[in-house]
Amino acid sequence: MFFHVKETQYRAKPSKPDPVYAKKLQEVLGGQFGEISVMMQYLFQGWNCRAEQKYRDMLLDIGTEEISHVEMLATMIAQLLDKAPVEEQEQATKDPIIASVMGGMNPQHAIVNGLGASPNDSVGYPWNARYTIASGNLLADFRANLNAESQGRLQVVRLYEMTDDPGVRDMLSFLIARDTMHQNQWIAAIAELEEKEGVIVPSTFNREYELTDVANKFMSCSEGTESKSGRWASGPTPDGKSQFDYVANPVATGQAPMLQPAPGYIHGTPPFK
Amino acid sequence: MFFHVKETQYRAKPSKPDPVYAKKLQEVLGGQFGEISVMMQYLFQGWNCRAEQKYRDMLLDIGTEEISHVEMLATMIAQLLDKAPVEEQEQATKDPIIASVMGGMNPQHAIVNGLGASPNDSVGYPWNARYTIASGNLLADFRANLNAESQGRLQVVRLYEMTDDPGVRDMLSFLIARDTMHQNQWIAAIAELEEKEGVIVPSTFNREYELTDVANKFMSCSEGTESKSGRWASGPTPDGKSQFDYVANPVATGQAPMLQPAPGYIHGTPPFK
Amino acid sequence: MFFHVKETQYRAKPSKPDPVYAKKLQEVLGGQFGEISVMMQYLFQGWNCRAEQKYRDMLLDIGTEEISHVEMLATMIAQLLDKAPVEEQEQATKDPIIASVMGGMNPQHAIVNGLGASPNDSVGYPWNARYTIASGNLLADFRANLNAESQGRLQVVRLYEMTDDPGVRDMLSFLIARDTMHQNQWIAAIAELEEKEGVIVPSTFNREYELTDVANKFMSCSEGTESKSGRWASGPTPDGKSQFDYVANPVATGQAPMLQPAPGYIHGTPPFK
Amino acid sequence: MFFHVKETQYRAKPSKPDPVYAKKLQEVLGGQFGEISVMMQYLFQGWNCRAEQKYRDMLLDIGTEEISHVEMLATMIAQLLDKAPVEEQEQATKDPIIASVMGGMNPQHAIVNGLGASPNDSVGYPWNARYTIASGNLLADFRANLNAESQGRLQVVRLYEMTDDPGVRDMLSFLIARDTMHQNQWIAAIAELEEKEGVIVPSTFNREYELTDVANKFMSCSEGTESKSGRWASGPTPDGKSQFDYVANPVATGQAPMLQPAPGYIHGTPPFK
Amino acid sequence: MFFHVKETQYRAKPSKPDPVYAKKLQEVLGGQFGEISVMMQYLFQGWNCRAEQKYRDMLLDIGTEEISHVEMLATMIAQLLDKAPVEEQEQATKDPIIASVMGGMNPQHAIVNGLGASPNDSVGYPWNARYTIASGNLLADFRANLNAESQGRLQVVRLYEMTDDPGVRDMLSFLIARDTMHQNQWIAAIAELEEKEGVIVPSTFNREYELTDVANKFMSCSEGTESKSGRWASGPTPDGKSQFDYVANPVATGQAPMLQPAPGYIHGTPPFK
Amino acid sequence: MFFHVKETQYRAKPSKPDPVYAKKLQEVLGGQFGEISVMMQYLFQGWNCRAEQKYRDMLLDIGTEEISHVEMLATMIAQLLDKAPVEEQEQATKDPIIASVMGGMNPQHAIVNGLGASPNDSVGYPWNARYTIASGNLLADFRANLNAESQGRLQVVRLYEMTDDPGVRDMLSFLIARDTMHQNQWIAAIAELEEKEGVIVPSTFNREYELTDVANKFMSCSEGTESKSGRWASGPTPDGKSQFDYVANPVATGQAPMLQPAPGYIHGTPPFK
Repeated sequence: MFFHVKETQYRAKPSKPDPVYAKKLQEVLGGQFGEISVMMQYLFQGWNCRAEQKYRDMLLDIGTEEISHVEMLATMIAQLLDKAPVEEQEQATKDPIIASVMGGMNPQHAIVNGLGASPNDSVGYPWNARYTIASGNLLADFRANLNAESQGRLQVVRLYEMTDDPGVRDMLSFLIARDTMHQNQWIAAIAELEEKEGVIVPSTFNREYELTDVANKFMSCSEGTESKSGRWASGPTPDGKSQFDYVANPVATGQAPMLQPAPGYIHGTPPFK
Repeated sequence: MFFHVKETQYRAKPSKPDPVYAKKLQEVLGGQFGEISVMMQYLFQGWNCRAEQKYRDMLLDIGTEEISHVEMLATMIAQLLDKAPVEEQEQATKDPIIASVMGGMNPQHAIVNGLGASPNDSVGYPWNARYTIASGNLLADFRANLNAESQGRLQVVRLYEMTDDPGVRDMLSFLIARDTMHQNQWIAAIAELEEKEGVIVPSTFNREYELTDVANKFMSCSEGTESKSGRWASGPTPDGKSQFDYVANPVATGQAPMLQPAPGYIHGTPPFK
Repeated sequence: MFFHVKETQYRAKPSKPDPVYAKKLQEVLGGQFGEISVMMQYLFQGWNCRAEQKYRDMLLDIGTEEISHVEMLATMIAQLLDKAPVEEQEQATKDPIIASVMGGMNPQHAIVNGLGASPNDSVGYPWNARYTIASGNLLADFRANLNAESQGRLQVVRLYEMTDDPGVRDMLSFLIARDTMHQNQWIAAIAELEEKEGVIVPSTFNREYELTDVANKFMSCSEGTESKSGRWASGPTPDGKSQFDYVANPVATGQAPMLQPAPGYIHGTPPFK
Repeated sequence: MFFHVKETQYRAKPSKPDPVYAKKLQEVLGGQFGEISVMMQYLFQGWNCRAEQKYRDMLLDIGTEEISHVEMLATMIAQLLDKAPVEEQEQATKDPIIASVMGGMNPQHAIVNGLGASPNDSVGYPWNARYTIASGNLLADFRANLNAESQGRLQVVRLYEMTDDPGVRDMLSFLIARDTMHQNQWIAAIAELEEKEGVIVPSTFNREYELTDVANKFMSCSEGTESKSGRWASGPTPDGKSQFDYVANPVATGQAPMLQPAPGYIHGTPPFK
Repeated sequence: MFFHVKETQYRAKPSKPDPVYAKKLQEVLGGQFGEISVMMQYLFQGWNCRAEQKYRDMLLDIGTEEISHVEMLATMIAQLLDKAPVEEQEQATKDPIIASVMGGMNPQHAIVNGLGASPNDSVGYPWNARYTIASGNLLADFRANLNAESQGRLQVVRLYEMTDDPGVRDMLSFLIARDTMHQNQWIAAIAELEEKEGVIVPSTFNREYELTDVANKFMSCSEGTESKSGRWASGPTPDGKSQFDYVANPVATGQAPMLQPAPGYIHGTPPFK
Repeated sequence: MFFHVKETQYRAKPSKPDPVYAKKLQEVLGGQFGEISVMMQYLFQGWNCRAEQKYRDMLLDIGTEEISHVEMLATMIAQLLDKAPVEEQEQATKDPIIASVMGGMNPQHAIVNGLGASPNDSVGYPWNARYTIASGNLLADFRANLNAESQGRLQVVRLYEMTDDPGVRDMLSFLIARDTMHQNQWIAAIAELEEKEGVIVPSTFNREYELTDVANKFMSCSEGTESKSGRWASGPTPDGKSQFDYVANPVATGQAPMLQPAPGYIHGTPPFK
């Protein structure tokens, strides 16, 4: 069960309104790697967790914190929209500054949301649940989480560079630090699991059933051999089972497919005699 | 530029049709972590690559290979649909076996695709480009790739358990092995980059601008302290900058937000005196 | 069956083109509460209606009128796009007025629709059928309809404030009045049904099967008790069954969940000994 | 800021697994009127609230409670999926009971989520943010909320009828009662606002600017006059401004539109001489 | 403006309910090539039409007819759902026939729509406006229309084969015939335009600005030369400008791309020395 | 199986960066009729092809070429984004030129993609698989392909008019020419099939089962008879079976629908006595 206190987790107040920036900031609220995504991802991983209690507890700890981040961003965006200019068009287009503000705003911030935040990204595309990853395999999911915090911190940093509002930067400096922490956290959690399970997900599949012949081969399906000079193309594989093997000219080993004609009730292209 | 040869990269032929399984197998063709996703992800990362040539070359190598995997799965699904029963309803519902086949099929396989594969997932939801991750930061993106290969191998393994068709299992044993290779590959590539850049993405943001106070704190926003016993809650942080610090009772440090009334032209709830 | 006459239901002609405003006006054509939504919603409620004929007839009356509103908006938008400047970029960016017009236009209006209206909202997101509500319970659906007309009129009013084109305002003054009528209509229809059925939807569920203990409690899950001073927290409940009861400190009455480990074929995180 | 305790708000434990029912129950978790929708809707209305504090407090109270409902449903669904049969196809299709279970399951519950809940609806379509309504006008939004609780209770009641599992019914009896409370709550809140503002949203638009001529007319655009016998077609309008007026044969008052030819750079159909 | 009469354009009454078939029939109501798509497509093409009046008139004629087809299908589906079995799960799974019906139904037909039709396709995916094509170029759009009627008739024919209900087949025999007519219609309309404009869309682009060297070459980017034996690989091109030319081994004529490093504020992968 | 060479199929290098144009150019990369659509469409038609080998070979030839077009556009867009101005807001809004550039950019190009291309359209809406058409009937699908190349060339031509960058125009002159070729190709392929099968898709449905009475009637459901003067309203039908027949005043021939009340467990509106 959940409870709420009125104060935000950290300060969330801009120095002045900026409706164009409000549109951009939506990306880290409602975008693929915004705070709604990590909130939902950690909560669902926690609720679905069938492993040791410490994982469930940890996931719900961080999932709950992310709701607080969603709250901070929504609060910030609503204030960035304070008194956004929604005036008569003719007047506005005569003043290039106002016109550019109005051109750069998300029109739904005024028409649909009445100067409030919305759960959409920076182009107005709605957040959707296909962004949420919860597979039941924690090593797989912690890798998803590390990715989410990496993409997320990268986006927040880019947004930090796009403003010089001290209030906005203050809040972002908090979020960036939390993303640093969360990257550290998932790296540590991944290391703990990899030590127990090994590095290949899922660890429980019997590797005799896979075609081990090709489990260590880098196939250069693209002309050129610059790709040969990476760590991924020589030396021992991280799973400790083999050595990387660089195949400069991979070949097809299957057949050329021949499909059977469709039955009559499908009304595909008829066989012409 | 791209070229095609007629043979598939590996064998892709079922022992017999199975339209219910065809529906399920769509998940790893057109789902969030299906082959279309990694194909598009690696190709766009390669085309957008502004780093050393070896990365671009490697990304296009593997992106090109993934097109061949898409081809194998589409070919397999089309054959699993051979002569799928699309008969008169009344007859079918009298025979529970046929009825269960028809109930378990994706109706679009017959009505829309004429017994062919489609770029959708196992519930018929269309593949979409929000699955594609290409941020311009390779360390972030390689983590996305490691996650994709982990989720992908997990799903293929689950599908392997759901069939005993030797032809399908033969093809899946190939795909599982390639996913093993690709997990190994991304782990190696990540290690190479982390050695140069450190582990926090992006490495180039000046950490003086972040609120370092909270960059090492695990905040237990959820009741209970089981989460304290993980590696993520004590010991040095992986970025080598600090020690994890467990905050058992985090507190809100922001203010309770108070938004200004909306301007009149927004027609929000009017202020009542 | 449907028939069409050439004249629009009301005048739909702008005084002059304004492609930036055309983009905004799309919201009430193809947005969540645009005319396409109410058109589809009323028609589907009518076609699916299993109640008295007067409801079916009324729903098809108003659903048919909404098609005429869609026509008016599409016609208006096409004219607002007349001769939109789609000129060479270099020239345009030298003239800030033209540049701001081009920046504020929806690029698909030119590239995709050839200066025509499209069934999308003001950020270009396509109308979709999840906006359509038709549950088979008229009291529930009339509440959906009242909401749609309330959100719709609010959006049209905001758009009215964003233009001073007399032709556009003329058409909007008609649509605003029809939305007034339709709010009145649904309020009246709801009152008629509530008188017969009571206010709780659905009225036919045996209330002995619900946990009546909590059917009148306002639970203050958020710190602070300002919420206590509303009508929703004290006095008789509108369904006449009870008195509102304010619970200042609600508590969890369930258990802490413990899920069973997943079976082996799921390949979740393995149990570590 | 938000906090979590381990116990669920109410009991959420089925008597036995039922993966087919798990699929159906997803509707009220991740569907248009599921718990995620009301959670997001109330939270965003609260965070964006520019009116009196009691409204903000109340919205965050109930928004926070809805997170707890999401948790209960996710927990219930995960348990309904315990040990779902994901066995070899051939075997299964010989046993019609198992086959029908497998045919009726959502395949993603096994392949993607490893027997966990997901933020999708009963056909596997992902929750998306276009379901969230927050306009900045509380009367409009409370009507959206009353609709959501009406549709929501209707769906939960239908799901109650589809199971006889005592554990599931126990939880649903709690949710149904809370939906009763929330319908009561929004009716009371709406009444309070309507008393201050009147019934037409938005109340602040100057009605001289609307075409009052048509603000009270029911237009029978569909053949037949059964629609005349409803309360919406005669008597005083609920806004107290007029009497309903039934127009049996409405006529078009606009012109037949004539659009100008597109400019050359649009390459529309050329004018043929 | 639009008007409605109560009778459907043609009979729409099944001989008996069949909820599994109702799910399938949704494809031609709310799918990509269902009746909603052609309704919206023809209406928007008509409303946006900037060419001769006869085209606008014709498009609105057929667009209006398609609304009547939507009505017929919705009416049919609602009746196919009459008294669909939504009983207790346990009972049902003991009777394989009932279980297979329930497994094959769309659960939303009961839970969300109360045994009514919905604007979704046969897998429950919502109709969306990206299906609507209206470019402002009639030759392009009539080709879209011919395709829509071809895919549509194909799907209706497949659905005809999947039932033996005389009432359903009666209605489908009408829709199939109208699709025949509409294919004939668009072929005739296309021929009329091609005679005036030539066959290449758009006809108004100055062909000196295109790279005429490659405007007649079939490039065999895939191994094998079976593709050489088609009409598309030899003989005069349909636009009358040239002869088809078969290029057995096309080569890349561009350069290998080299992108510049990203500026610092993008925080891409840093250049490593 | 697929292979890649480093050079692009044709030159893809702009004369200078132009981030506003980059946003627009996304339409023909990731829009409904962009290169990703035709790539996926031709490849899936090829992989699913159950007809003669020459069709499969031809489809894979052209599908493979389209991957190369995707590559060219992605490469072009990445370069158009070189050093896009992502500077501090305050500064920028003082310079209307920069402001208009920033207002006209897609913010995700900077925040999400780090100055790279993405698989989205010109309003940032993601490419999705519902754009892919592959029905198993080649005549239907070739009509889809002809439409795609017509819409596609129209869009590229419009984009050609919106720039005067010689490098961009050089690449577009290549793509326009290839679209000319592909229109020619599909026209030729359609003619070949129509000669064998006739013009109505599908050709294999027994026309005795359709309601031939209405298979030749143009129904004027919209007031006015301008539509009578087209080729579609008189003369022989293209399928050679009949003469077009113009019905000036079509009438409804079905009944007014009457649906049965819903069963009790649906909890629709109860029957009021």
